[in-house]
This record gives sequence, structure tokens and C-alpha cells, in this order.
Amino acid sequence: MRGPSRHGAATLDDVARRAEVSAMTVSNALNHPARLSPETLARVRDAIEELGYRPNRSARTLRSQTSRLVGVRVERSRQDRAALLLDQFLHALAESASSLGYHLILCHAAGDSAELAAYQELRQTTAVDAFVLTGAHRDDARMAWLREQGVTFASFGRSWDADPDGPGAFSWVDVDGAAGIRAAVEHLATQGHTEIGFVGWPEDSELGRDRLRGWQEACTALGLPARVRAHVVDEFDAGRDVAHRLLDAPRGGPVPTALVCVSDTLALGVLRTLSERGLRAGPDVAVTGFDNSPSAALTTPGLTSIDQPLADVAAELVRILDAELSGVAATAASPAQTLLPPRLVVRDSSLSR
Amino acid sequence: MRGPSRHGAATLDDVARRAEVSAMTVSNALNHPARLSPETLARVRDAIEELGYRPNRSARTLRSQTSRLVGVRVERSRQDRAALLLDQFLHALAESASSLGYHLILCHAAGDSAELAAYQELRQTTAVDAFVLTGAHRDDARMAWLREQGVTFASFGRSWDADPDGPGAFSWVDVDGAAGIRAAVEHLATQGHTEIGFVGWPEDSELGRDRLRGWQEACTALGLPARVRAHVVDEFDAGRDVAHRLLDAPRGGPVPTALVCVSDTLALGVLRTLSERGLRAGPDVAVTGFDNSPSAALTTPGLTSIDQPLADVAAELVRILDAELSGVAATAASPAQTLLPPRLVVRDSSLSR
Repeated sequence: MRGPSRHGAATLDDVARRAEVSAMTVSNALNHPARLSPETLARVRDAIEELGYRPNRSARTLRSQTSRLVGVRVERSRQDRAALLLDQFLHALAESASSLGYHLILCHAAGDSAELAAYQELRQTTAVDAFVLTGAHRDDARMAWLREQGVTFASFGRSWDADPDGPGAFSWVDVDGAAGIRAAVEHLATQGHTEIGFVGWPEDSELGRDRLRGWQEACTALGLPARVRAHVVDEFDAGRDVAHRLLDAPRGGPVPTALVCVSDTLALGVLRTLSERGLRAGPDVAVTGFDNSPSAALTTPGLTSIDQPLADVAAELVRILDAELSGVAATAASPAQTLLPPRLVVRDSSLSR
Repeated sequence: MRGPSRHGAATLDDVARRAEVSAMTVSNALNHPARLSPETLARVRDAIEELGYRPNRSARTLRSQTSRLVGVRVERSRQDRAALLLDQFLHALAESASSLGYHLILCHAAGDSAELAAYQELRQTTAVDAFVLTGAHRDDARMAWLREQGVTFASFGRSWDADPDGPGAFSWVDVDGAAGIRAAVEHLATQGHTEIGFVGWPEDSELGRDRLRGWQEACTALGLPARVRAHVVDEFDAGRDVAHRLLDAPRGGPVPTALVCVSDTLALGVLRTLSERGLRAGPDVAVTGFDNSPSAALTTPGLTSIDQPLADVAAELVRILDAELSGVAATAASPAQTLLPPRLVVRDSSLSR
């Protein structure tokens, strides 16, 4: 049996010869161990150990040999629902990544520029192959920087740039929030509501404007007025306050019998206010949320909400990255962009009886 | 200037010489770039690039050069609260790790043996330095395996072995669940309750038995009967059902006026049942949960619950690993074991008026 090659450093081929398998099998042992029989896997691992073979994950020059590490930023811990949704997404992403032999590496950063510094460090010290970004916004410097560096990435969240298909276009997967809100409005109309109000985020939120558009479009299509609306920060107490305000019908305006909320946090605040006013959620005032957070199912009455298919988002993101890293698709030249439909989950809070 | 050393592979010393800095500075450039001036960092990075230096993250023999990667397993995504608590913990852990220059690497595995296979793969392909384990249980094979391999690890969750300080002892950080439940019982006693029931998990759960003990101890200390109890799976509907059953007072037994629940999921199910029976949570039947999940604050009425200090748990775990990896402490010889106190968060569900 031949010993290791020149320079004393064992190569993948050395391992293959020692284990009497193909180089592809050694590669699978490293990247997709589940694809091998336990016996073959043990033989390859023994050979790796005997030869002291070290898979070279920092060799950026060897593009064919990838580290199979995908970096994701986590933000400062918060107790709010949006943060929890991202935690759940992270979990789904780790699961999807694993199924294609990738591992997720988390870097913590506060703000976009800290995020880029963290990416740079990760690439230099750990040879991360690709990144998944969240929270895309207009004129997002992160995408431009990653493009410039030739780094593979994809975003959970579409581009909000003026020309999303222009030269700065990137790969993303997103959930069609406007469609979700339209489904909520249509459901409330079937329950007999004709004055359906909207509780949204401040109008500088691109995500919030998209959902607002869903409410306006659905009301218009149904021939209903789209006139009762409010824009507040995404906090429980803001939901409580705005519900009091809208139900008090400022300046003698119309009183809504249903409120479509842009988040579960705001909707749960509205439910608290209904309880305080002695009103029943559903029969007296119908309420819907967004995210289908665990709270929506567990609160009483149950909160009708819009479910984001996080597992599908994660699987599609990993598929995009894998295609580019495998050389199957050049996403920089032709970005993959997928808008997934959400699903309305009806519970008692929106049922007239 | 000298060229690279023998075998053609540049070493850290080669980089230091080329950049005219110390080896420690090169190490810092790799592991703590923020500690260097941008100018020095650029010089080191140029030298790394010119020499094609590849930080050798798979060299297990060079204990001094660590990868600064910490592995954590994630389980299959679930929608329940316990899973969400772990997602929140993961987030806190990523944040704590980052503050000491570590990155978290997530591996997905279903079951303990798949977890060990994933650890082995991670160590062979990515040179992970240490692991954080969750969900420790009696006769946990993972700890023994990691000990045997000489791998640094710590557990969120104490050892449940018969002799936790014996030769198999390991480092852990946990939250004192029994103390949390005692605090809930004491609070309910101050609200005037004398028949305080317990809604627990099946008795084969070590965590559940610990919390049961807290209820028994507190009732005994207060001179109250500890006689109304039930053990059910951790599901919302199980909480609904058990509440009906306990309030119907089987066999003419005592009817509890307060229910201490082992989880928020069960407590939220109990709240649904109270609403169905036309009873007010708080004035009619007091209810407490465990975890202080976002739902506890956002449901109506708010659910009194027991908050786990996840950020503190994460910080302590990272501190333990860092001490061992830095050679400051040999945790295998003298395990670090920390039981953190939880905090009772009182809301309307347990207030008599």
C-alpha cells in the first residue's frame, strides 16, 4: 500500500486508496455520511485517522472543495414576536441545510456594517461558503458588498429596491404578505363584515406597506370602503391603544366591526382591549393577526392568523445556495426569486359565531 | 525575507515574519480581528494572502490553536413551546459565544445516536472545539462518549444520574425549576388559596419530577395539603382536558381553587377551559405557568409564569467552555455546575382581584 503523497500531507486520494474506495466515497464520508453504509463509513474514517488526513476547509482557491458552512447573522435577543419568528426560521434553516450536508454557522452582529465585518472575519477564519441574509431593505449595502466580494448569498426577504430586477438583483425567497392580508379581508367579508379596518406598522416599513396594499386591494375588489386604518409600532400596548382609538370612532367616523392586523403582537393587543371593553372577539369585533405564532393557537379565543411557510422558505434558500455552490446555477447572473403563498388559519377571533 | 518553511506550507510564523508582527498578532488577526488596528490587520491579511497561509482548523494535535467553533444540536422543528424555548436559548447562546470570539455551528440530529454521529462528522470536517448539549437525561450516553473522546462540552440541564458528582460528573448550567414552582405556590398562598393543585408532566420526566417536588415541598412548608395533582403530556389540549377533570372533582374529592402548571402550554390550555366554563382566571381559579413564554404576556388575562434566565445560562456555558479551551480550568477534572434561580412574573391569571 502506498504511503501519503509528497510534502507528507495526506490527500483525499491517499485516503481513498487506503480505504479501498473511490475519492467520491471519501468526499461523501466527509459531506454526506448518511449516504454510506456504516461499514464503509467506518473504513473511510479509520483511513482518515491513520493517515492524519485533514480536509482543507480554508483553501479558498480550491473552489471545488467547499467548506459546506453557511453563515447567518443573529440579532440581539428580543422578546418580541418578530424575533421569535426569526429564531424559528433559523431552526428550519439548520434543518434544511443539514439535509443537503451543510452546517449553519451563526454570527452575531448589531447593524448592517457590523454584519459585514462579521462576514469578513468568518470568511477569513472559517472559510464560510455562503450566507443567508434576513431583513433586506431599500439600498441594502450588504448585498452590494457581497456581490463585489463574489460571495454566494441569498435573502429571506425580497429586494425593496426601485428596480428589483436591475443590475443589483439578487436571489431571494419571500412570503407574499399582501396575498395573506387579502385572504384575511376576503374571509372577514364572508363573515358579513363591511367596515374592515387595518392596523398596520409605520408607513416607512416596506413590509408594512406591502401588507397595507393587500388590504386596500381586497377592499376595493370587494366593493368595501378601505378607510379605517392606523399605523403604529409593533408592540402589544400599541395594539391595545389603537383598538380603543378606532372603536371610539374619532371625529364621528365609521366604527369598524373587524380589524385586520399586520402582526400577531398587535392583534393580541387588540384582543386585550376587546376584553377590557366587555366585547367578544369574533361575534362583536372580528380580529386577524399575521405570523401564526404559537400564541395565536394558545390564546383564548384562538386568534385567526396568517401562517408563513418557514420550512419551505428555508428549503428553497438552501436549494438556491447549493445550486450555485455546485456550479449548477450562477445566481449572480440569473437570480432565483421565489414568492411563496402564506396560509390563512381561521380560529374563533374572526368567526361571527 | 525567508520563504515558507518545509513542505511548502506556510505557517503562522511565516505569516508573522512576512507581516513583521508577532505570532500572537497573527493569531489575534484570525481570532479577534477587532483587537488590532485596521492597518495592522490589513498587513497581516496581505501576508496571509501572499503566502497562501491556511489556518489549520482541523489540526487536533495543535491544542493551542482552536477553531473557536462551538457545536450545538438542533432538533426537528416543532411548533410547541419547549422547542421555542430552545430556539430562544440558541439565540442567546450565539450572542454570548460571539462576545468571547466564538461562533456557534448548528448541527441537526434526531435522537442521541444521530447526535453523536453528527458531532463526529463536525469534528472531522470542521474541527469544532466544543459542544453545548441540551436535554440531559439519566444514563446519557452522549456525555460518556464526549468524555471518552476528550472533547470539551457543557450542558444546559443538570445531570440526572444517580450520583451526579461521581466519576461521570460533567459541567452544566441549569435553572432551579423546583424553586420556581415553590415561588408560585407561595404567591398563591398569599392570594388566600388553600387547595392548590399541580398539573405536571408524566412521572418519567426528570424535569417534571423536580418541579413536582417544588410543589410538594412548598405545600408542606405552608401547612397546605398537596393532594390534587395530575400528570399529562405537554400539550394544550391535555391542559384543557385535565382542567375539566380536576374542576369536576373526581370521586367527590377536593376542588382546587388554584392550579400550578409545569408549563405555559398546559396553563394556557387550563385558561381555555376556565373560559369555556364561564370562570374567571384569577378571581375564580388562579393559574400559573412555567417558562414565561411570549404567549404568557400576550394572552388575556396575562398568565403568571416563571421566567428562565436564558441569557445568564448561555453566558455561563460559554464562560465554562472558554475557561477549559484556554487551559484556565480543566472542567473534566473539576466540573463547573451552576443552578440559576428563576423569577416569578405575576400577571392577572393568579390575582384574586
